[in-house]
Parts: sequence; C-alpha cells; structure tokens
Amino acid sequence: MLKVGVVGGTGYTGVELLRLLVKHPHVVVQVVTSRAEAGTPVSQLYPNLRGHLDLNFSEPNIELLSACDLVLFATPNGTAMKMVPQLLDAGVRVIDLAADFRISDVDEWQKWYGMTHVCPALLEEAVYGLPEVNREAVKQARLVANPGCYPTAVMLGFLPLVEAGLIEVEQLIADAKSGVSGAGRGASVGMLMGECGESFKAYGIPGHRHLPEIKQGLARAAGKPVSLTFVPHLLPMIRGIETTLYSQLKGDVDLQALFESRYKDEPFVDVMPAGSHPETRSVRGVNSCRIAVFRPQDSNTVVVSSVIDNLVKGAAGQAVQNMNLMFDLDERAGLDAVALLP
Amino acid sequence: MLKVGVVGGTGYTGVELLRLLVKHPHVVVQVVTSRAEAGTPVSQLYPNLRGHLDLNFSEPNIELLSACDLVLFATPNGTAMKMVPQLLDAGVRVIDLAADFRISDVDEWQKWYGMTHVCPALLEEAVYGLPEVNREAVKQARLVANPGCYPTAVMLGFLPLVEAGLIEVEQLIADAKSGVSGAGRGASVGMLMGECGESFKAYGIPGHRHLPEIKQGLARAAGKPVSLTFVPHLLPMIRGIETTLYSQLKGDVDLQALFESRYKDEPFVDVMPAGSHPETRSVRGVNSCRIAVFRPQDSNTVVVSSVIDNLVKGAAGQAVQNMNLMFDLDERAGLDAVALLP
Amino acid sequence: MLKVGVVGGTGYTGVELLRLLVKHPHVVVQVVTSRAEAGTPVSQLYPNLRGHLDLNFSEPNIELLSACDLVLFATPNGTAMKMVPQLLDAGVRVIDLAADFRISDVDEWQKWYGMTHVCPALLEEAVYGLPEVNREAVKQARLVANPGCYPTAVMLGFLPLVEAGLIEVEQLIADAKSGVSGAGRGASVGMLMGECGESFKAYGIPGHRHLPEIKQGLARAAGKPVSLTFVPHLLPMIRGIETTLYSQLKGDVDLQALFESRYKDEPFVDVMPAGSHPETRSVRGVNSCRIAVFRPQDSNTVVVSSVIDNLVKGAAGQAVQNMNLMFDLDERAGLDAVALLP
Amino acid sequence: MLKVGVVGGTGYTGVELLRLLVKHPHVVVQVVTSRAEAGTPVSQLYPNLRGHLDLNFSEPNIELLSACDLVLFATPNGTAMKMVPQLLDAGVRVIDLAADFRISDVDEWQKWYGMTHVCPALLEEAVYGLPEVNREAVKQARLVANPGCYPTAVMLGFLPLVEAGLIEVEQLIADAKSGVSGAGRGASVGMLMGECGESFKAYGIPGHRHLPEIKQGLARAAGKPVSLTFVPHLLPMIRGIETTLYSQLKGDVDLQALFESRYKDEPFVDVMPAGSHPETRSVRGVNSCRIAVFRPQDSNTVVVSSVIDNLVKGAAGQAVQNMNLMFDLDERAGLDAVALLP
Repeated sequence: MLKVGVVGGTGYTGVELLRLLVKHPHVVVQVVTSRAEAGTPVSQLYPNLRGHLDLNFSEPNIELLSACDLVLFATPNGTAMKMVPQLLDAGVRVIDLAADFRISDVDEWQKWYGMTHVCPALLEEAVYGLPEVNREAVKQARLVANPGCYPTAVMLGFLPLVEAGLIEVEQLIADAKSGVSGAGRGASVGMLMGECGESFKAYGIPGHRHLPEIKQGLARAAGKPVSLTFVPHLLPMIRGIETTLYSQLKGDVDLQALFESRYKDEPFVDVMPAGSHPETRSVRGVNSCRIAVFRPQDSNTVVVSSVIDNLVKGAAGQAVQNMNLMFDLDERAGLDAVALLP
Repeated sequence: MLKVGVVGGTGYTGVELLRLLVKHPHVVVQVVTSRAEAGTPVSQLYPNLRGHLDLNFSEPNIELLSACDLVLFATPNGTAMKMVPQLLDAGVRVIDLAADFRISDVDEWQKWYGMTHVCPALLEEAVYGLPEVNREAVKQARLVANPGCYPTAVMLGFLPLVEAGLIEVEQLIADAKSGVSGAGRGASVGMLMGECGESFKAYGIPGHRHLPEIKQGLARAAGKPVSLTFVPHLLPMIRGIETTLYSQLKGDVDLQALFESRYKDEPFVDVMPAGSHPETRSVRGVNSCRIAVFRPQDSNTVVVSSVIDNLVKGAAGQAVQNMNLMFDLDERAGLDAVALLP
Repeated sequence: MLKVGVVGGTGYTGVELLRLLVKHPHVVVQVVTSRAEAGTPVSQLYPNLRGHLDLNFSEPNIELLSACDLVLFATPNGTAMKMVPQLLDAGVRVIDLAADFRISDVDEWQKWYGMTHVCPALLEEAVYGLPEVNREAVKQARLVANPGCYPTAVMLGFLPLVEAGLIEVEQLIADAKSGVSGAGRGASVGMLMGECGESFKAYGIPGHRHLPEIKQGLARAAGKPVSLTFVPHLLPMIRGIETTLYSQLKGDVDLQALFESRYKDEPFVDVMPAGSHPETRSVRGVNSCRIAVFRPQDSNTVVVSSVIDNLVKGAAGQAVQNMNLMFDLDERAGLDAVALLP
Repeated sequence: MLKVGVVGGTGYTGVELLRLLVKHPHVVVQVVTSRAEAGTPVSQLYPNLRGHLDLNFSEPNIELLSACDLVLFATPNGTAMKMVPQLLDAGVRVIDLAADFRISDVDEWQKWYGMTHVCPALLEEAVYGLPEVNREAVKQARLVANPGCYPTAVMLGFLPLVEAGLIEVEQLIADAKSGVSGAGRGASVGMLMGECGESFKAYGIPGHRHLPEIKQGLARAAGKPVSLTFVPHLLPMIRGIETTLYSQLKGDVDLQALFESRYKDEPFVDVMPAGSHPETRSVRGVNSCRIAVFRPQDSNTVVVSSVIDNLVKGAAGQAVQNMNLMFDLDERAGLDAVALLP
C-alpha cells in the first residue's frame, strides 16, 4: 500500500482528495496536516468522512511527512514551495494541487502570483500534470504540478485543434463558467449564498491567474506563442465547470473524427456523440472531461464545449490520476465512480 | 387611463406583464385572456397578484379585446398573427411579446419558426421594439414586435461598436447565459429542478431562433450583413441573462467613452464604471440593461458583458417601455422600481 | 417630507430598508451611516441603488442624525442602545431593527444576548413593533423595537389561537425555516454557498435568541406564561421564512373563520383560502404574511403554516409600516409592491 | 454473480438504482425495462451511466425477467402488483420500490392509493423492508416492500423512543422536508425550477400517502395504534430529506445513550454526537440515516432531527441493502461510498 500524506486538508480540494483516497484500493492516508485544525478529527470538519477516516489533523511537519511515499499539497498558493525541496531531498515524491510549480517562467509566475518564488530551480524539473499531454513524464516525475481547474477544461477542449495546426492560434477565445467551490472554503462576503446565489456574472476580465497557465500549455502544443482571451464567470451552483471555446478554422476537417481520434485511448476524456451538449452534472463527482465540438452554420468558427467537475478532473481526481501514473498503478484505480445524477 | 388587454396571461411573460401593469399609474388592465384558464381568477394562478388584480381569465375574443386601446400578446409563437389583423382593423394598437413580427424576411421567419406566416404583409409595417434604436418609429407604430430576451442583451452590447464601424462584423461572437424562466412555464422534463438545478450546459449551438433576429438587428446597425456565432447556455437560476460578447477591434478608441456617449440619454441602459463586472441580480425585477466594456491585455479583442432580467428588459418591461412611447406617456412610467437584492 | 436616517446600512436589512425608503412617497433619506464604509457611495456597495440614491456613507454621528425626524438602526445587536438615549433626548424618534429593545426583562435579554444592557430604563418605554398587536402604541411611540423575523412569522400564526384561548399554551411547537439572508452579510464559512447550498439542516435546537422574544409575545397574548419548542432550520435559498406551527386544540371552533376574522382589517396579513399552502415566493419582496390553518385528519392538532419575506415583513418592511404609523402616514405607503414571481 | 432486472428504469429511483448496481461487486444488471424507451440505450437517457452500462431499455416482459434472480420495480404505484405474482411463481424474488406492498391493510391501501389492489393475498407475505426493524424477515423474503422516503426518515427517528415506550404515542408530530427529486422525473409545472426554485412551502397537510405507512410502522413498534401529524414540505434543492420530530416524554431517560444503544450495530444509521445538527449534504449519495436527539430547555418535548438522501437510504440504497440481505451478501456491499461534499 502506498503511504500518502495530505498537507492542508481543510479546503474543498483537500476534502475531495480525502474522499477519493480513503476508497482507493492501493493507498493508506497516513497523515493530514492543518496548522489551524491540528488535533481536530478530520471527520469533524468534514462530516462526510465520518466512519471512513479515523485521523486527526496534525501540525505540518517535515519529519512526519517524510515517512510517506507521496505528499499531496492542497494548500493556498505559496505554501508548497516552502516545503517541497526538503521533501524531495528526503526521497518523497510530491504533487502540488496549488499553482506553485505550474508556470515554468519564474518572472511570469511572480508577476501573476505577487510573491517571490523560493525554489525557482524546481520549476524546470516539475512536470505539468495533464496526463493527456504529459503521461510519460508524469510517470517519472518526482514533482508534479497539478493543473488548475479552468486550464484543464480549456486545454482539453483546444488541444486537438491546436496540435493539428487547424486553427488560428492568434485569436483564441475561452468563455469559462465555474461553480462556487472553485473559490475555496475561505470566508468571504462575495461567496456567501446571499451574494452569489440566484445571480451570474463575469469576473477577472482584465486578467486571471489561469490565463498564463493556459497560454503556456497551448503554446507548447502549438509550438509557438498563442493569443487567448479568457473570461471566467461565476455560476450559482457548487460543482462544475463548463467552457465554451471559439476559434477560427484554417482549413476543412472532420472535427468529430479529429476529436475522437485524439482522445480514443484516454480513460478520462469522453468525446460526446455529434450534436450532444454536455452538462456539468453528468460529470459531478467523477474524473472525466466531456467534450463536444461544433461548426455552427458551417462558418469558420469552431465551437467546443467541455465540462469537468472542478474538484475532480479539475483538482483532486486529476491528482489521483497523476499519483496512479507515478506509482505505476492502474490509471483508473480509485476513479471509477458513476456521477451523481440527479 | 389607458385600457389594456393581455392575451395569454398564463406564462411567465404574462404574469410579469401583469405585475408591472397593475402598478402602472396610467393603465387599467381590462381583460386577460387564456383559453385554458377561462373563468379562473388570475390571482389564483399567480398568487402574487392576489389583492392586486380582481379579474378572471376570459376566452380570447376579438370583440372584447377591441374595446382596449392596446392589446399585448404574451402567447406562444404563431398565436398573435392570427388575431392581430382584426385588432388593427378595429383600431387597436398591438405589442407582440412573441416572435411573430420580429423578422422582416418572411422566408427566414418561416424557416426558423417552422410554420407559415398568416399575415406576412404586416411584417413590413411592424416596428421592432428596441427603443434604443427605434424610439421614434415605436411612438408612431400600430404594431410593435417586442424583441427577444437574448437579442436585447446581445444587441445593446454590440450596438455602440457596430454603429461606429469599429469592429469586424464578419466575426462576432455572443456567449449568452439565461435563467430557466426564459424557457417559459410549460411542463417539460428538461426544465424540472431535478434536471436543470445544480448543472450548466450550452444548448442550441447549431442554431437558435434568436440568431436571425440578432443578425437582422446588427446588420441594420452596420449597414451590411454580419456574421455571428451565438451560443446560449442554461443557468441554474430563475431570472437573468448575461451575455459576454467578443469582437475584433479595427482601430483604437476610448471604449468606455464610446459606450457612455452612445447611451447617455437612455433611461434603461446603464454603462457601468470602467472595470465593473455587472451581476444579473443587480437588475432583478427591473427594466435595465447594465453593460461593461473591456479590452483585456490590450489585445484587439473587445469584450462586452451585458446583463438584463430576461422577463423585464428582455420581455415585459420592454413592452411597457414601448407602450409608454406609443401612448406618449413618460417612458419611465411604471418602470422605476429598485432591483431586489439580495 | 419625513427626514430619515439609517444607521448601519451595509447589511441585508439596511439595503432592504433603503430599497423601500427611496421609493417611499413621503420620505427623504438624509443620511446613511457606516463606520467601515464612510465615504463610499451607498450605490457602490449596493448596485441595485445605483441611480436611486445619491448619498455616501457617513460616520455615525449624533449631531448629523439629530437633524432627522426618525432614525432607523439596521445594526448588529448592542449598537443601537449606545446611541438611542441621546437621539431621544434630541427629540428624534427611533426604530431599532436589531434586538436591543425587544425583550422587556433585562436579565432575560442579558442572558440571551451575552452583554450588559446600557439603557435598561428604556426597555419599558420601547414599544414592540408588531402592528397587528400594538398598532395604537406604535403610533405614540418614541422608540419602537422592530420584531425579529422568526417571531413575526410565528406570532402572527399563533395569535388568533392564543388570544381566543383555544389551545394548550403549555405545549406549543414552532418548526421554522429561513433563507440564508436571515444570517446577514457578514463573511462566515457556514454561510458560503459551498456550505449551505443544496443542503438543509436544523440549528439552534437547544436554544435560539428568538425563543424568549416569541414566548414574551405569546405570553402577553395569552395572559399567562407559555411553553414553546422552537426549532429553526436553514433553507438553501436567499429570502423567505416559512413556519409550521403545531398546537393542541381545547375545543371545537371554525378555524378558518377565526383567522379571517382576526385579520380582516390587517393590510399586511393575508389569510389564505381553506386548503391553500402558502409559498414563500408569493411574498418575495413584499410586506405580507400569508397564513393557512388546518386540522388534519380531524385530530386535535391544529397546524398553521405562515410565510413572510424575512427581509420585508420580517425586518425592513415592518419597520416602514411602523414608521408610517408613528408619523400618521397611510400604513400602506411605500409598501404596495407586487411580489416578484417567478 | 446475482442476475438482476430493473423494471421501470427511467425515473430518478431507477437511475439511482442503476448507479449503485453497476458498481456492486456481486451483481450483473441483466435487463432494464421501460415501455416508453424500449430500444434506447440506457446511457442515452442517463448520461452518468455512459461507459458504465451497455444495455438498451427492453419492453417489460415476464419471460425475460424470469431469467433473473431478483427483479426490482422502480415503477409508478400500481405497476408492480400486476407482474409480481407471475414473477414469484417463476421463482424470482422481488423488491418493489413503489408502494404496492407497503400497507398490509388492503382497504387502507385502496383508500390512499385510489385503485383496486390486484393481488391482496400477497400483502401479508410481503416483508416491509426496513432492515433496522425486519432484518431477519427480509433475509427470508420472496417479496420485499421497500419503504417510502419520508417513512424511512421518520421511523428511524422515532423508533428508539417508541420501542422503549418512552413517549406519548397519541401525539406524535413529524415535520418533514424533501428535495425535489422525491417528486420523480415526470414533467409537471409544479416541479419546474421556475416554480419550486428559491421558494419553500408545506404541502399535503390534510393527508399524504406516507402517513398510513408511517403510522403502521410505528404502531407495530409501539404495540398499539399511534396518532401522528405529518407535514411534508418541498425544499428548493435536489436531494435530501430532513425530518424534525416532536413528541412528549413520559419519563426521564438518557436520550443520547438510548439512541446510541438502539443503533449500535446498524451499519447505516449514525447517531450523531450530542449537540450536532445533521445536514442533508452529509449523506448525499450514500445509504445512511444520521440522527440527533435533543431535549431543549429541559422540557418534556423530545426533538429528533434525522437526515437521509431520499434516493439512497430513502429508496435505491435501501433496496440494495435489502437485496444484500436476501441473497446473504455483506449488507454493506456496494454501499460503502463517501458522501459528495461540498
């Protein structure tokens, strides 16, 4: 059994990770840390874990964590980078679910995240954990940067088109919508149900931290820089991201066949039958990205709609998928649930 | 007092119209018709009208309606066109809140609505009731085609750019999201709370009936045909539309000043301060379209976010605004409420 | 025109009060105070007031407030009592929407609110502002304690039975459910949409601050102490309270007639036709309490279901109703809106 | 592997049953019938089953179903009774998730369900499938009547008190609240999101079909008739039932110990720590009933709050639990998921 530690298990990503890990057939959750909740039973903070996980939160502690085979960070941005070097030195492998190692260019990272990176040398080593792109590298990685939620949905939708060189990468548009759990579990007025219930809005139009991450990923796929307009929106619901992607076709192609072929061996990407419109609820609680592709009115504009559960394929599920790859387990282990519908 | 009749008052547009009309200072609601509910007190079907409207539904009847100064149709598509000629002959003015008179080209109309138009001769006479474009024509009109909800939000967002010739009209994108009340009050599995609650999806990507209506309006503003990709989405909430519009700038311009100047005399269009992101709840229950304009990352892509209440500025409120114009009343009469927030 | 000041206008009760006051035909809102937001335009915090109220928040200041005819406190508990004595001395009349003056017994108040009352002498003078019980006293009052939201719904439901001596007052049960806006606009984890959306629970079963307030009101009506089990619940929606009340009948009576007769002259209590089940949405945004009464299976258990909008008849609307009474205005002035439905 | 057939798999109970069965370690789903959808892939109607169940709906057919070890009916009331006798004759065991066999008294059944029972002789044989009461009988049963959702939550909450003879059973009160999925997937105006979203109401106060079922169960536990006031309410959310139960204590007792002792060996009943208030979300998607017991203000009124997922412990999960018992499988098989939270 794989010995796993979770740092920062008090947010939504943390509890989702624990939900998946406690039922994973090859994993033992050895330690869950939280400075604020040290001593509290994990199942007291997260009543869904009652009867499934008999652990108290511990103080974050390198020694304790060093006894694990793998440590997963479900911490705010800027936390993992302070502990990762020591853990790697101790021979522990690491998956960071926050953003500390997602962007290779340290200046770009520091600009968007507003802090100094404390171990920039690791940025090059870190593998960007989108298995659909980096599967082999993930298997070998000591340090995996688990992708952001929006980037996962946007990149999986654009990749077949970008990799095949079929669209103008100077003019990509991603209109993205997320449920409120994407904002985490910190107390804030804006995320009160009284504020975001029964309402909808765009936010961060001038610039959102996921923009450079998406551009980096698409540029790698394109082999050249890309230009992207990315507009996130806040949905009055808890889980789920949908992104509607717009780009200009350069030639003619069977889009449906292109997408099906690109993802035919991917266990967690599901290209929907032609004409379908995927719903976020169809992936609620599961590690799947569902995608549909359209060319409305036979114009040159390709429209892609992709959906994920932001906490699963957009965070904790993808981390488990990466863990499975890193430790040579069945990639689907612990990730075979059926979505909760209705 | 203006004598007003409402045909088809059993849907959401109908009840919203009645909510506004019963408090309108210059209107008397004389008759509300519904074939299915004839004889039932209106306030039994719509408990919010209890104590405010003491009328029973009547059978639709030309004679009865001919005693009105104005008849408003809140009926399914294809109903108004069967009664409008007789009402006009009787000297009654008409506002149709459905789509029967929105598209001037009868072939286009018949293609999208799947039926034969029974009074195509009136299509030319009908005035498209977007006051921000057609105020003077509305004042004189016998027959007003009240705009669709999506078209209102999309057109008000694009108009300043299109009229000024500042964007490539061959490549417009409108990503639109609507609350469930836009689908009306008919029983259908897809609109059950168990189906559309806590979920989000795009729909109608290959083609939606509001597409030709929007293209017609923007083409008139541009003075030439436009190309538009329009993707509607279904929000898990009741009221509100947000549209995020994308287009390519042709030159440099102070976008904020452009929008403020275009709408400075409009009582029901509110250009938000630079940097704001309008929320649908800020217009809940009121006849207002709030708009913000952005040029993210200083690229050539202009992004506009516009919000309306689909039942008010997107339907019943706009009809009242048109009524006020037609009968030379204060354009704001009956439309001065404050949005319900939270 | 009545000159009105609002202290603490940054919460949900405050914004609702302003929504009603800015459209009130006989009122001028002269000053809105908030220590935290002093200098900010009120309409920046509350975008629904944009275009309706052109005031900035001021520092709370006795001198400024003393120029008003009436000051309304929409502050946290314990704030009003510090300023009220000075305002009364200055000849200003006061309505406190918080709990400072609701309970006559100072020890009881101090026990439930966990602080020392700084002007206990005023507790006797303060009039409990439930117009359906205290209309005449409210008219003369210098200081009105505006009732809590749960107490309003529970008391209006029980009063006809208690006043008529028809039920066992030793065994009253009130099962109450409230939307999240009842918890206010302060940032807290428990009220995040991610926490309270799509979920339901009871809370405060061992004891809730509204319990002594309700018992006091019912005891006055009964002329003797009452025993009450009060269980509040949190609904996954924004506005609305429903209370289901259970009590044991002592004799036979026409319950429907009793309720209709008790409230026949009340402008804001609506006894529904026999067999109706009132919905919270039917009073959304309006100052009304709708009530239905049942005797299921002809047993001795009377069941009453009452609904209000917690922010209107449960707070701001009732305050405006009290203001109208205090200043000899039409009791309905500013309170004649139709509920927003759907 | 157990060969299982599902009759009527197109409603919410049906899809939930399939969600659980396709992951059950000892079950093969052999046939899923639906007259209306015969020929359609099951995963087309229920996209969450895509990739998990490769079956088309078949016409309901006794021969086909007779090849199964167990047939589960997830049909409207009145359907199972027409097929059950033939299936039993063919040696197939049956669980009916509808109400056909829940009430032993045929007259009572016919009164509440408004139809003639076609196989009343089976009413006596049928075992009421609440394992916490009838575990041994379920094991031997040919025909199990799976309990209703409200009855499960109400009975599990009252049982410890009733069985111990500690409360006045002449005066029980159950205030119950259910998410909309309890009303099924049939198209109806009342269950549209536009109608039941953001609103709350009681319904069926004069009498609800679950009333006689609950009374029957509690009377058996009490050994004498009971009197119950049962008021259901509709919650603006999808899954979950909470019931708040009120009764009068006859003596003194350690309620917490009583409840813990009653359920200490029950795998799917979780008595919460003293002072907890269970949330419906904490059991979302799982086969658990969580219960808390209170004696507020030390009065004689006991208050119990119980929560279940109406589609799991209130329907499909309980059916799987009964199936496990009937076929001597681990009672927990296929039912060990962690609730989806948030």
